[in-house]
Amino acid sequence: MTRADPTIVRKVQDSFAKQGFLKTFDAEIVEILQGSVTLSAPLLPRASQQHGYGHAGLSFALGDSAAGYAALTLLPPEAEVLTVEMKINLLAPARGDRLIATGRVLRPGRRLSVVSAEVWAETGTSRKPVALLQGTMIPA
Amino acid sequence: MTRADPTIVRKVQDSFAKQGFLKTFDAEIVEILQGSVTLSAPLLPRASQQHGYGHAGLSFALGDSAAGYAALTLLPPEAEVLTVEMKINLLAPARGDRLIATGRVLRPGRRLSVVSAEVWAETGTSRKPVALLQGTMIPA
Amino acid sequence: MTRADPTIVRKVQDSFAKQGFLKTFDAEIVEILQGSVTLSAPLLPRASQQHGYGHAGLSFALGDSAAGYAALTLLPPEAEVLTVEMKINLLAPARGDRLIATGRVLRPGRRLSVVSAEVWAETGTSRKPVALLQGTMIPA
Amino acid sequence: MTRADPTIVRKVQDSFAKQGFLKTFDAEIVEILQGSVTLSAPLLPRASQQHGYGHAGLSFALGDSAAGYAALTLLPPEAEVLTVEMKINLLAPARGDRLIATGRVLRPGRRLSVVSAEVWAETGTSRKPVALLQGTMIPA
Repeated sequence: MTRADPTIVRKVQDSFAKQGFLKTFDAEIVEILQGSVTLSAPLLPRASQQHGYGHAGLSFALGDSAAGYAALTLLPPEAEVLTVEMKINLLAPARGDRLIATGRVLRPGRRLSVVSAEVWAETGTSRKPVALLQGTMIPA
Repeated sequence: MTRADPTIVRKVQDSFAKQGFLKTFDAEIVEILQGSVTLSAPLLPRASQQHGYGHAGLSFALGDSAAGYAALTLLPPEAEVLTVEMKINLLAPARGDRLIATGRVLRPGRRLSVVSAEVWAETGTSRKPVALLQGTMIPA
Repeated sequence: MTRADPTIVRKVQDSFAKQGFLKTFDAEIVEILQGSVTLSAPLLPRASQQHGYGHAGLSFALGDSAAGYAALTLLPPEAEVLTVEMKINLLAPARGDRLIATGRVLRPGRRLSVVSAEVWAETGTSRKPVALLQGTMIPA
Repeated sequence: MTRADPTIVRKVQDSFAKQGFLKTFDAEIVEILQGSVTLSAPLLPRASQQHGYGHAGLSFALGDSAAGYAALTLLPPEAEVLTVEMKINLLAPARGDRLIATGRVLRPGRRLSVVSAEVWAETGTSRKPVALLQGTMIPA
């Protein structure tokens, strides 16, 4: 995969910086490629569910955001995207140092884009799959 | 619908209090009935997406938690539940004073429970639907 | 709910009559209301899965078609709809004389409609829930 | 990927042969590997929707069955599986000579398996993606 155009990279960075929700969890952009974006966030107590693991809401938000930004990299520079719907299958507790989410465009489209995302929990350098998302984005 | 048993009410309250993620967003329990739980959270800057509205991650987390606790009210006191999968359809931007999410059990089961949730944005006393969720919980 | 406009009723009937797939299973229109359509199909051997019950493909097709036609009743007469995505939760084996599916529009829209459907298995006059669907339709 | 064990291959073939629904559409088994099964079905008039293309119910049924059999290849010989839930995103009209569906196990499990499926429309030797499915199977 090739790197996204610098205009698009800046647009994703600007949009990301405005997301209070992602900032709340110290989320970061790991990589912005054409049709694929990777985000991460540490597994902090403020993101935990009742057993101390990462809350499904964080896995969802990271996966959904990564998928939305992936869709954005394939649209014209002035476009925005909104999530129409998203399905998440949870595979394992989000246990580790941080979550990593990679979003991908499965089918780009002017009217709708079909996207997916994988979320892993990382401890040191080892990764374990935590969630899989499949959904639809609409240019806004 | 009838109120949930006091043992169950206390169990839901205790579990809720341990969720760092929900505390981060000042979420509160509104009502605990048998087979239906309602939660709410104010729409704060720390829960915003890039346009200043509530992040889909918050709608998801409130809906998913309300649905999970709804499932818990129909299980034996010692049971816990985990989300197997959840689908969310987003209906409108989460704009207003607060989000309200009501989770319901559509089909209880020993092995799996099928649940749904509706999420509204409330401004003063007027409510607007924001999201619909349908998913599966498993006793843990 | 009110009955759909006669123009819309005829349009749904005409479209239904062209669906080879639904004809294969002797499916019928039960009711066409504004924002809600009910279909049915007998549980024949040709619609069975490996244990002799109705195949999930039939529950899906009936629910999806009922939901799509429900969306059509709220759109201008010249519109068509396509399914963008559909999620089905299966509740019980499709065992009985026939399947009944009622589709509803949860949120109509010019760009997208959010829909749901319930599918029951009917034996004599008793009904048992078999499947729940939630999805998105797009005007075509 | 390696071929599935002969016992498992026979079990999938026996189960497949009992599915009246799949027989109705002249569906065939293309390949049975460990953790992945491919099915196909011709695009016949009896499987059409109102515009003459393949009905979403056929794409769903092929994808769901391929995914279910994929799950079966990773379970003990005496196990059966049922679909808990399935989400389908439709990418393009099912237009061509036949549909091909490959199901895969994303995460096998004793209690639940997470699966996916891709469905293509094939014309001669060219393939076009038609649908993507993601869902959950339970041993029965």
